Amino acid sequence: MARYFVHLAYNGANYCGWQTQPNLPTVQLTLEKALATLLRQPVAVVGCGRTDTGVHAADFYAHFDHHGDPFDTQAIVFKLNSLLPPDIAVFDICRVRDNAHARFDAVARTYRYHVSTQRLPFRQGLYCRIYFSPDVDRMNEAARVLMEYDDFTSFAKLHTQVKTNICHLSHAHWDVEGDELVFTIRSNRFLRNMVRSVTGTLLDVGRGKLTIDGLRHIVEQRDRCAAGVSMPACGLFLTKVDYPDGYFDPEQPQQQ
Amino acid sequence: MARYFVHLAYNGANYCGWQTQPNLPTVQLTLEKALATLLRQPVAVVGCGRTDTGVHAADFYAHFDHHGDPFDTQAIVFKLNSLLPPDIAVFDICRVRDNAHARFDAVARTYRYHVSTQRLPFRQGLYCRIYFSPDVDRMNEAARVLMEYDDFTSFAKLHTQVKTNICHLSHAHWDVEGDELVFTIRSNRFLRNMVRSVTGTLLDVGRGKLTIDGLRHIVEQRDRCAAGVSMPACGLFLTKVDYPDGYFDPEQPQQQ
Repeated sequence: MARYFVHLAYNGANYCGWQTQPNLPTVQLTLEKALATLLRQPVAVVGCGRTDTGVHAADFYAHFDHHGDPFDTQAIVFKLNSLLPPDIAVFDICRVRDNAHARFDAVARTYRYHVSTQRLPFRQGLYCRIYFSPDVDRMNEAARVLMEYDDFTSFAKLHTQVKTNICHLSHAHWDVEGDELVFTIRSNRFLRNMVRSVTGTLLDVGRGKLTIDGLRHIVEQRDRCAAGVSMPACGLFLTKVDYPDGYFDPEQPQQQ
Repeated sequence: MARYFVHLAYNGANYCGWQTQPNLPTVQLTLEKALATLLRQPVAVVGCGRTDTGVHAADFYAHFDHHGDPFDTQAIVFKLNSLLPPDIAVFDICRVRDNAHARFDAVARTYRYHVSTQRLPFRQGLYCRIYFSPDVDRMNEAARVLMEYDDFTSFAKLHTQVKTNICHLSHAHWDVEGDELVFTIRSNRFLRNMVRSVTGTLLDVGRGKLTIDGLRHIVEQRDRCAAGVSMPACGLFLTKVDYPDGYFDPEQPQQQ
């Protein structure tokens, strides 16, 4: 048995998220099927996270185990990209140590949420149109306030079975990028739906519907019902997954 | 009667080009229908050019005549964008002098052609994938050679009824932009299919299939069959249409 990491990206518009669900198109299932065809054995991949329906990933990792002789990873990457639909791109496959884990070993994740006040015909499905001009400075003030906290219960989806709602944010900032306004948020972990509800709440600050004190109150209430509306999936991208330094350095004679 | 210019952009993927054709979806027809609904009169628009099926326009102008009282252009722009599909964006409508002409008055047009050696899941339908790494310096040398000529018969679609194949290029250059390679070409006019066949021919130079002398031979032959393959529509954008200086300055009391 040998374990491999797949480094990929996908446009989530046509998928019901990453994780396999019965009778629904998911990125995981699409990737597993293509790998199984090429490697001629059943393949189960474990993703670094679970993006929701319609959410995009510009940087995503998944691991899988391969039984039998090692294979030419570069050749498989090439064939995989021929087999996969054009909304999934595989950058690389590399052998890792047998206990490496795409999800548990990731130390941080970065998400970006794109909004625009304009109609952008070449960015359809990749941003969310908003119909007001938010105050970016105010939203960045609100983002700084958010970083003072670590309990994000107020932004968690109800009824999920996680043990803790503690997240250590290391970055939260809005930037103007061309015709778009982009919120970048980095944390060791995220709760389900968290980025979309945080983005919606900060946009409420930006349009004057919510004060900074109001934001503090929402966070401190630890009640999901208090937060702003969750933004639609199309504007959300998982853009960076971090592993410890040297994680991908070859430790054993493995690549052929 | 009053004449108006519409400034717009469109993603051409879902249209059989700009110009109305019987029973086919075109940008012209879509725009005319929306304007007619809002202005409550039949509207015929004249475009600044005729993009082919699947070709995009990031900058496009069209004029139309309106009979009756002047209308609030800003209100119509807003309503038009609500009525039009998301792949067409109207930036502005402004009144112009009665003999202004979107096509005849344009003094230059700029097109850009996007290629990439990579799979880009967030740029689907907006670039053309190529399976070789072209030599960009060689292609720019070829682009400079192209600018020495003005008869582009070799790159014109056969059997069109234009009177002359003379085009005065003012820019032709390849640039690396992120994961893409972009060819920008500017001319007072373009022949049908010209940008796509010029791009294909320059890519032949870039991959070593054609020499600079070979390129000169193709241009000097004035025979379409000599040139390289025409690139697909999806990578092509009309990005700039130039009118004379001061063209849009109000000359009469017209804007309300």
